[in-house]
Amino acid sequence: MSPRLQRAGTGAAPQKKEGKMKPLEKLTDQIVRRVSINLREFDFDVRPYVHRTVPISHLLKFCAFYGITPHHPVHFRSRHSNLAGSYFLGKCAIDDSVIYKSDIRGDELKLRGEVIHCQGEDIPAEHDQSFVIRDSFLVKTLVHSYPHDPERLNRFPITSSVSLPYANIHGSPLRGCFLGPFSTVDISALHDCIVGAFSYVQVGELSHARIDPGLVWIRSGQETEFRFQFTKAIVNKYIFFGPNKGFRGIFADFLEARETEFQRVFETVHLEPVSVPSGASLNRYALLKPKSKIGENVLVAQGAYVENSTMGKGANAQENCYVIDSHLDGRNVLAHGAKLIHARLGEKVFAGFNAFLRGRADAPLIVGEGSIIMPHTIIDLEPESDAPLEIPPGHLVWGYVTDKETLRQHSIALDALSEVDGEFTLGEMRFRGSGSGFVRGFQHRIESILRDNGAYFDGEKNRGHAQKEQHISFNIIHPHLRGQREGLFPATDIRP
Amino acid sequence: MSPRLQRAGTGAAPQKKEGKMKPLEKLTDQIVRRVSINLREFDFDVRPYVHRTVPISHLLKFCAFYGITPHHPVHFRSRHSNLAGSYFLGKCAIDDSVIYKSDIRGDELKLRGEVIHCQGEDIPAEHDQSFVIRDSFLVKTLVHSYPHDPERLNRFPITSSVSLPYANIHGSPLRGCFLGPFSTVDISALHDCIVGAFSYVQVGELSHARIDPGLVWIRSGQETEFRFQFTKAIVNKYIFFGPNKGFRGIFADFLEARETEFQRVFETVHLEPVSVPSGASLNRYALLKPKSKIGENVLVAQGAYVENSTMGKGANAQENCYVIDSHLDGRNVLAHGAKLIHARLGEKVFAGFNAFLRGRADAPLIVGEGSIIMPHTIIDLEPESDAPLEIPPGHLVWGYVTDKETLRQHSIALDALSEVDGEFTLGEMRFRGSGSGFVRGFQHRIESILRDNGAYFDGEKNRGHAQKEQHISFNIIHPHLRGQREGLFPATDIRP
Repeated sequence: MSPRLQRAGTGAAPQKKEGKMKPLEKLTDQIVRRVSINLREFDFDVRPYVHRTVPISHLLKFCAFYGITPHHPVHFRSRHSNLAGSYFLGKCAIDDSVIYKSDIRGDELKLRGEVIHCQGEDIPAEHDQSFVIRDSFLVKTLVHSYPHDPERLNRFPITSSVSLPYANIHGSPLRGCFLGPFSTVDISALHDCIVGAFSYVQVGELSHARIDPGLVWIRSGQETEFRFQFTKAIVNKYIFFGPNKGFRGIFADFLEARETEFQRVFETVHLEPVSVPSGASLNRYALLKPKSKIGENVLVAQGAYVENSTMGKGANAQENCYVIDSHLDGRNVLAHGAKLIHARLGEKVFAGFNAFLRGRADAPLIVGEGSIIMPHTIIDLEPESDAPLEIPPGHLVWGYVTDKETLRQHSIALDALSEVDGEFTLGEMRFRGSGSGFVRGFQHRIESILRDNGAYFDGEKNRGHAQKEQHISFNIIHPHLRGQREGLFPATDIRP
Repeated sequence: MSPRLQRAGTGAAPQKKEGKMKPLEKLTDQIVRRVSINLREFDFDVRPYVHRTVPISHLLKFCAFYGITPHHPVHFRSRHSNLAGSYFLGKCAIDDSVIYKSDIRGDELKLRGEVIHCQGEDIPAEHDQSFVIRDSFLVKTLVHSYPHDPERLNRFPITSSVSLPYANIHGSPLRGCFLGPFSTVDISALHDCIVGAFSYVQVGELSHARIDPGLVWIRSGQETEFRFQFTKAIVNKYIFFGPNKGFRGIFADFLEARETEFQRVFETVHLEPVSVPSGASLNRYALLKPKSKIGENVLVAQGAYVENSTMGKGANAQENCYVIDSHLDGRNVLAHGAKLIHARLGEKVFAGFNAFLRGRADAPLIVGEGSIIMPHTIIDLEPESDAPLEIPPGHLVWGYVTDKETLRQHSIALDALSEVDGEFTLGEMRFRGSGSGFVRGFQHRIESILRDNGAYFDGEKNRGHAQKEQHISFNIIHPHLRGQREGLFPATDIRP
């Protein structure tokens, strides 16, 4: 049984022992109650999702890691919490939470005095920014970047929220939310919301809303909007998910097949060193399999998996990315959770959060230079495909693509999109606003990511994550194995 | 070059870089200054001992471990300190100190309300007892047990003190002290003292004294005293030691030969589990080599080494003990740092701190039931010995023994010693007081140690260290690898 994904029907029921709840059960119960209260208007019971997601016994098995470098402000504090197998970087305060195999990566938190660009304003940070995770349950979740909510610039709170495997919380404060598996909340503040499986929202602010599974929704102010809705059948094919069921489907199969590979990474203190070019960084908790080539200024983040692939200069594979039998020309961005199999990416191709891009050995997926694969796009060639699928340079791709025909229904040349001003519809995709603004905004963001990740490091200037994370050390925190606090981690405070 | 022992002449000089001291150098310098002020009356400069003991580069290489179990009060706090490769258990507060590969083992610290037996009085502890290590430099030092100083029962302070490799600080608060290598301070409070290499003191209180190398000195009140002085030549043969020289000799050779064996233990997170009988415990940082047998209720502590040996029921090998090609019948106590090679111990034989007991393959050392080998005893048969050396049951042995003749000069039957009332001299040994009181006191202490270590566990009652340390988890603390705090460990606070 995999500790990472809980298959339908195999989840551990909450254990009772002599009528007395164990502290971990008590803690989980308390979180579930708080979140359910926040979501009461939807008549949404969080319990069957939480208790089936990860068996309590697995919450005891793993230690937590707090990364320390000279480039990131150090302060970690945790109390009454379980942090099994999780990775933390930057300032974090965690109370009464269960965090399991999650990456809480604070390498873009702003220090006091640094300027935050926020909705057109330049605001100097009054305090060091920090993560605050309270009364929350995060399983295999990626939390990254700094808060972009102008009302709460110093803190990145995730309060009374539940997030399921492979959800991404990116610069997005949450309160009273439920995020389904493989969902993404991107640079948005959410309050009392339910985000369905494999949904992507980047909407500024959202309150008391329920997002259906498989919605990809970008909204910028009142003017610009992008919407694509996956059909229920496609969502279920890739992530079949429901209460008391855990989840299964193609994504689960893909990840489970590689689950055990990661064990070695966690079971050895000092791995045999892997030589990477200067300026590049291969995280100690990433997995680099044979026949892979790492170019200069490449960033391979923790939890990333690279096998039989070439990462060209300045390419990056962020947390939970899989790069298999693929070739990246360079300066590519694979956002958190993106997966590439039998793919060839031209320069500066961008693949968004949780994109699943699978060519076949005899029919690779070829993506031309400068193309943008929207977050939560599935390109999955049929196993019997015998010719490559080619996405021309400079295209935007979204939705569900399996061949040339579906590609036509789910892509547009960036130049053509730039001509749009007003409404534009193609298949299930609906766009309104300034096409050129949308394209420029996206390209600007890709440049920022490349810069932040260190793709442009010249040996002295333009230092980014790839360079700053080269000299990281880890504090390793273990749970209480027995006694009254069994399963909880000791209250820990780490400062410089 | 061994990180554990610094050989003469190879020590790293304090490094200067662009006229600016690194934080670790600054810290070391500050400690040296404080200790030297305490010891100014002796015109004793600590500097050449400290800077040659361990190269600063080694202080960066190792992480520290804080052990957590349900049986030991959890509170660890450290600030502005280096803790490389050290192991902590129980309540510890550490400030401005350099601790390198030391064991700070607080498994006998008393909790609030527990009764402390102290100089004939039963005193309930007002607070949980804790270690307080401040402005001190401890290298490969064992600190164990609880403070026995009735004036400071709640705290076990080691302040402004320097302790060199394989020194034992046992229940002994120190202030302004220098302990040479392989020295032991046992259940005593020392203030502004110098304890020479391989000296053992158990004297209640000592202030502004300088103890020559190789003195074994027990004093209990005004009535009872035991003294033995090793010759300078013997001390130098086993521990040649001086300012700017590091140390060498037979002890250094013996330890260095086994140094690398320990590396594997530290380099793997989860070692293949070794099965030991119920009630026994093999510490995760001990080394069990092939052809060894561990009996019931055996305790093998961290840093202990067992090779091709049998540990009978209820035997224990404490920190830094080596048991090689030996057989222990059971209920044996090997106090911290004791070493056995080609030896056979009858039931309840006791070997004191840093005792070095070496038989030869064709001429084993045989110690009869109930015999007591005094702390800091060297029994070292000549390599060409061809007959076993046999110590009869119920004998006390001290000093330097190489054959039957020297054994006669350095041993007495416990029954004979019990007859003594007044002065008694044999060779360099001087005893005065009540022989029967001395023998009873020793036997009483051996029983306590066996009980505390869990030798009498029956599956339910008489739980001791062997049983309580079975379910230990470790928090692992890494130093800053770069930047302004390079080499220092982050300020860390761990509570339940």
